[in-house]
Order: sequence, then C-alpha cells, then structure tokens
Amino acid sequence: MAEELTGNVLVAQSGGPTAVINASLAGVIEEALNHGCIEEIYGGLNGVLGILQENLIDLAEESQQVIRGLRYTPASALGTCRYKLRKEADFQRVVDVFKAHDIRYFFYIGGNDSQDTADKISKLAASSGWEMRVIGIPKTVDNDLVVTDHTPGYGSVIKNVAATVREVACDAEAMGQHDIVYIMEVMGRSAGWIAAGATLAKRRDNPEDPPHLIYLPEVAFETNKFLDDVAEVLKNEKYCLIVVGEGLVDAEGNYISTSASGQDSFGHEQLGGAGDYLKGLIDQHFDGVKTRSLRPGHAQRAAATNASKTDNDEAYLAGQAAVKAAIAGETDKMVTLTRGESDTYVCETGLADLSEIANGVKPLPASWINEDGVSMSYQFVKYASPLIQGEVAVPHENGLPKFVKLGASKVDRVLPPYDLNA
Amino acid sequence: MAEELTGNVLVAQSGGPTAVINASLAGVIEEALNHGCIEEIYGGLNGVLGILQENLIDLAEESQQVIRGLRYTPASALGTCRYKLRKEADFQRVVDVFKAHDIRYFFYIGGNDSQDTADKISKLAASSGWEMRVIGIPKTVDNDLVVTDHTPGYGSVIKNVAATVREVACDAEAMGQHDIVYIMEVMGRSAGWIAAGATLAKRRDNPEDPPHLIYLPEVAFETNKFLDDVAEVLKNEKYCLIVVGEGLVDAEGNYISTSASGQDSFGHEQLGGAGDYLKGLIDQHFDGVKTRSLRPGHAQRAAATNASKTDNDEAYLAGQAAVKAAIAGETDKMVTLTRGESDTYVCETGLADLSEIANGVKPLPASWINEDGVSMSYQFVKYASPLIQGEVAVPHENGLPKFVKLGASKVDRVLPPYDLNA
Repeated sequence: MAEELTGNVLVAQSGGPTAVINASLAGVIEEALNHGCIEEIYGGLNGVLGILQENLIDLAEESQQVIRGLRYTPASALGTCRYKLRKEADFQRVVDVFKAHDIRYFFYIGGNDSQDTADKISKLAASSGWEMRVIGIPKTVDNDLVVTDHTPGYGSVIKNVAATVREVACDAEAMGQHDIVYIMEVMGRSAGWIAAGATLAKRRDNPEDPPHLIYLPEVAFETNKFLDDVAEVLKNEKYCLIVVGEGLVDAEGNYISTSASGQDSFGHEQLGGAGDYLKGLIDQHFDGVKTRSLRPGHAQRAAATNASKTDNDEAYLAGQAAVKAAIAGETDKMVTLTRGESDTYVCETGLADLSEIANGVKPLPASWINEDGVSMSYQFVKYASPLIQGEVAVPHENGLPKFVKLGASKVDRVLPPYDLNA
Repeated sequence: MAEELTGNVLVAQSGGPTAVINASLAGVIEEALNHGCIEEIYGGLNGVLGILQENLIDLAEESQQVIRGLRYTPASALGTCRYKLRKEADFQRVVDVFKAHDIRYFFYIGGNDSQDTADKISKLAASSGWEMRVIGIPKTVDNDLVVTDHTPGYGSVIKNVAATVREVACDAEAMGQHDIVYIMEVMGRSAGWIAAGATLAKRRDNPEDPPHLIYLPEVAFETNKFLDDVAEVLKNEKYCLIVVGEGLVDAEGNYISTSASGQDSFGHEQLGGAGDYLKGLIDQHFDGVKTRSLRPGHAQRAAATNASKTDNDEAYLAGQAAVKAAIAGETDKMVTLTRGESDTYVCETGLADLSEIANGVKPLPASWINEDGVSMSYQFVKYASPLIQGEVAVPHENGLPKFVKLGASKVDRVLPPYDLNA
C-alpha cells in the first residue's frame, strides 16, 4: 500500500457523451466517499475548460438521489467541451488550479484525446513537484481505445442500434413485398464498431435475419457490388434492411456521402450522409422499389432507455476502480476492462499506462468481417454479445424517463481569471 | 341482444404500422375465443390483398405464447398493403371470399382509408344478401381519425418522440455553449399531431425546457421568423433543440424540404426533408453554430420498447370491443375511444358509423398552438399527457427485445385465383 495522500478529488468528463458516462461519474463519487484521505470531491464543468476557468462544483453537496440518478442519466452531467489543451500555458494553468484547490486526485473520463491530456497533465504535475495521482477512465461509443477489451458506452450504443433494427424490421416485414429497402445510418466516423454491432439483431442460427447488409468503413464501397447485394436480398426476402456506418469510404478513401456529389442550393456541401447516398443509388437503379432512410444521429448514444445493464455496471465499476487504484498509489494510468478466458463472460478491471492508450486506435479486426464484406463473423458476435446483456430500469415520471441534473454548487475561485486566447 | 350469428371471423390490418396495432389483433383473437357462435378465427395476410388472393391463415392455431407476444410486438403481424380496393370486381371478390369461408364477422384494423374500405364492403355484403357484421378498429400514429377522442398508436409514437427529446437534450446540454442546434424531424406528412407531442418532454412549469421550438405543418413556415426564433433561444439557452414535422409547408402550401430547392446528382429530387432544410438555413446564416440533424424515420412508429402502456391497453381494448359489438349485433361501425368528463383520465369505447369516420380528417386544433407558433398550449398537454402514461414491459432475450411472428398456418383455398389486374 502506498503512503496515504490526503487532499481533494477533481473529476471531469470529456469528448462526446455516451449513455453510461455518468455511471462512471457516480462510481468515482461513491467510491471517493469511502476514503478518509479524500476531503473534498470537486467536479470540473465542461472538461478541461472548467479546470482552466476554475469552474469547479462541489459534488459532495449533491443529494444521494441525484448521485443515484446519474446511474441512468445519459450524456455528461458535468458537461463536456471541444477545447484541447495545446499551449504550455494551458497545462501550467491546470497544475496551478490543482495546487490552488489542493487537488491530489484527478480522474478524467474520456476517449483517446482525453487520456492523452491526462497523461500530459500527470507528467507536468510530477515535474512541477506537485504530488498527485492521475487516473483515466475510459469512455467512448466508438470502442476504439487500445489495451482495454472494450470501452464503456459501446455496449449501450450497439444494444440500442440492434434493438432498433429489430423494431424497424417488424415494420419492414409488414410493409414489404420484395420491394422495399430500409437504410439505417449509424455513428462511427472512422471505424465500423457500431455498424458491426447491428448484427446482434440476428437471432442465433438465423443468418438471413436483418440486418441483411452491413456496410462498414473498413470495406471499400463499390457501387456495383452494392446494387448486386441489394438485388439478391430483395429476391429472397420480403424487404432489405441495410445498416451503414456514417464513415463509409470508397477505394480511394473518400467519404461516400451526397456531399461528395455536389452542393446544395446554398452553395454548402449537401447534408445527406452515407445512408442518403445509398438511398439515392437504389432510387436510381431499381424500378418500383421504395426506400426509407433513417438517421437516428446523436439519439443513438443518448438512448438511456435502451442501455445495456452490463455496460452500465462496467462504467460504474471503472469509476470505482479508478479511485481504488489512486488510493493504492497508482498514477498516470487508465482503468481497463479485461475479459476472462472462460466461456462464461467475466469482466474485471486492470490498469494500463496512459501513454500507451493515448497513442493507439483499436481497429475492428479484419478477420471478424465475413468474406462477403457485408456481414460479421461468429467471433465478432462472441465478442459483442455479452456487452449488451441486461436492461437498465430507468425511473419514469408522468410517462417519461426522469433524468437528473447536478445542483452544481460552485466552488469559490481563488485564482485570477485565465485568458484562453492569451 | 341481436340474434346469434354463427360463423367465422376474419381480421386484417392495413396502412402504416404502429407500435400497438398487434395489441388490437390480440384483443380480437382473445375476445373471439370467448364466444361459442364464432367457429374459426382467420387472419387475412397483407390487408385486402390477402382477402382478394384468398391468403388466409388460421389464427386459432397460433400458440398462446404467440398471441401474448402480439401485445408487445410492433408493426402488423398479418402484414399490410398499399393496394386499394377500387374496382367493383374487387369488392365483389371480397364478398365471394367471405361467402366461400363463411365469414360472418369482419374486423379491419386501420386508418381513414381502411374504414372507408370496410364501409363499402359492409354495404356490398348487405346488398348481396350476405348477413355479416363489419366493425372497424382504429389505428394510426397520425391521430387524424374523427369522432374518436384519439387513435391507438398515437400515444406510443409521441411517448417515444418525447422520451427521445429528453435523451437527446441531455446530449445537447453536455455539448452546448450557446452554439449548438439539434434538429429532430418527426413523422406527420399532413398534420402536426406527432411534432406537437414532443412538447410533453418539457417538465411541468418549465416552459424553457426542450424542445425549444416546434415547427408544425399547421403554421406556415417563414425563414426570417425561424432565424429569429433560433437566435433568441441560443441567446438564453446552452443549446437549441428543434422538433419539426416532416410535412412543414410555406405560406403557399409547398413542402419545406431540400427537394423544393433542386435535384441531386442523379437527377432525382433531393433526399433531405424539412429537418435537413432547417439545418441548411442555420448553417448558412449563423457563424460558429454547429448543427446536428436527426431523422428517426419509421423507427418512431416501431418503437415498442418505448411504447405507452395506456396506448397499448386501449389498442387491446378496442380489439375486444369490436368483437363484443359485433356479437351484440352491431355492424358498419368503427370502435371509438371516448374520454370521460372528469379531471382523472378515463377512457371507454364507443361506436361510430364507418361512413362518418371515412370522410373526415381531424385537424390539430389551431387554438392548441400558442401565438408564437412554435409551442403548444396547456390544452394540448392536458389532452396528450394521459395517452403516454405507463411503460410496456417488453420481454428481452439475450439482451434484445423478443418479438413474435405468427406461425401462419394457411387456410385451404376454395376459389379460383383472382387476377388483380383484370
């Protein structure tokens, strides 16, 4: 056991929200309350921006009810930001804020960029002689963090996508007479992890179940093959249900989207994405085939009512594990999720160096994509299926999910204002 | 009590699916089993198409489990069709099929068009001397049937839309710095009933809650007012969340959509709808404002996992009531839902003449739209709020909703084939 380090906690969230990132926040807060060496628990508003501007709130003042409510409230209760620490002065300011508020424990919930930021902050604090412990907590719907088996947020987004496919398939089945194509565009700008997850909608041993075709950014898009794929499905099935990742590219690596083909009447790039592009191809090449294009957009990552209990529990666990690791003396690490070797899914937490996480991007393994290029192998299903198990009971009030907001009791500023543009 | 009429039941579904239309089917089947004068319970596949082509299945052969599963399986388990009975020969064929299979009870679950069809079938059967009872069962997410207080299917779609607004609002709240606009396009080609329902996402006495702006087909769209509306919201709120009905029109009644402004590179009308058009306007007129466009499409009406228990129960009730009314001797009627006068919501069923339903369309009352043109009055909330109460417990299997399919045991054909194009 490391020497006890007494002081305050600062926790912040960064990057795009997920359905379970607040569960990690709840895990940090509830675990921190267990340790006497932790005096205050502060939250930074809007990621690093709140730290730079000394926008801190006192999380210990939040009611039990609110902290429990974080378990099922989607997105980032502390707010997030698109600001990146780049200047030397920014990093120095962060350390100054830590010193001013006696922050000895910093927990940063985020993706690659955030882990990179945490790594740099950690190293600067050390070289400045400020003793503290910095632990990253993984989150991203994109599932592209290395070392960790998977990332909190991913299980919930693919559960929602797969559930929506099942629901929409009922609609298509009712409407179809071998003459209707539903196209659902899902998130994933640089990798097909989310689009791939749609395959879970297939019942076991029913490969002909929807989604019939999955188009991934990993497989170069070819128009003729696409048209053949669709024709083949329509021959055999009452309808064709397509899932396409928004980051679909052609053989040259250019995004497949209507924006590639022209501008709209404002002179801007057209707004349609990959899904609308595929719809256009079918409308052009098939007579008498109806097309329906769906783009749930950010609703995918916010769908708390369709979240995975497994994912939610693991997000909470990752928050707790971060605090435990810091108390035990670890620093400059990110919590990872590790999967047991047995056939029964078991997930435990581990630790990895922040620098190791920051510099990698985990690709969707090519071997998990079937040779047809439009379906996923059994290995992928084996990997992803455990991540969507179980449902989160979201309390409802007056017929709608009841989410919480933080009371956000401000911590007094003690430093002069900081000019972001200086 | 009318004289007992012994014979078989035929039930069919028509028009666009909803999350609860199968609950009405379950209501018909389970109630029909209670009456000794009903011998067989047949289902017509794909609406009137199945009747014309003698594609009937034996619903009494379905397992209890499947019938129970219909309660939470979205869309039309019997299938639907876009075929309309127009020719005299079509109507005569329907009556021939009724006679051939001793159909004495016909239940047709659908919207205006379907009720009109049922009315004509009913009258032709009567004039042909074929004694039978025809009862329509209302369904439509559009909520535009007259006489009935509301229509099964509507409560579930607006519950889903409002819940999605709440979830997406958490995402926008986390991301926003007075510089982000989320636009969600919802169904409703000719009326704003669904877009209006999004207002239920606001907490009571919190008019500033999202959705901040609702654009309805009932209010002629003006670009300048729209831009002013958005600017005002961004001044006061961290983000602006807009809900727009797909049927938005300008003062001349032309649809507001990118299709109005040009064609895509295929020479087809552009694919974007009203939501993408509004996104384009903001991108053009606001500097440094990010826009996110969501178009859940048919997922809205298929969202069984976000369905309203009230709506589901009423859909089932309407199915039961249709059978009871027919047994009691009623015919050429549609089941209506009536609302009690008391402050506590009570819903009962009534009956209206099919001809009365078929010729009307219920508009969204102008007095329920506030003077600002972008928000709903208390009267609307009072009307709509009871319809979304309660959640449907959808069984899950392996992490995903488990829906049922009918076994579809075919009834032997006894008539010569029918040529639809003759």
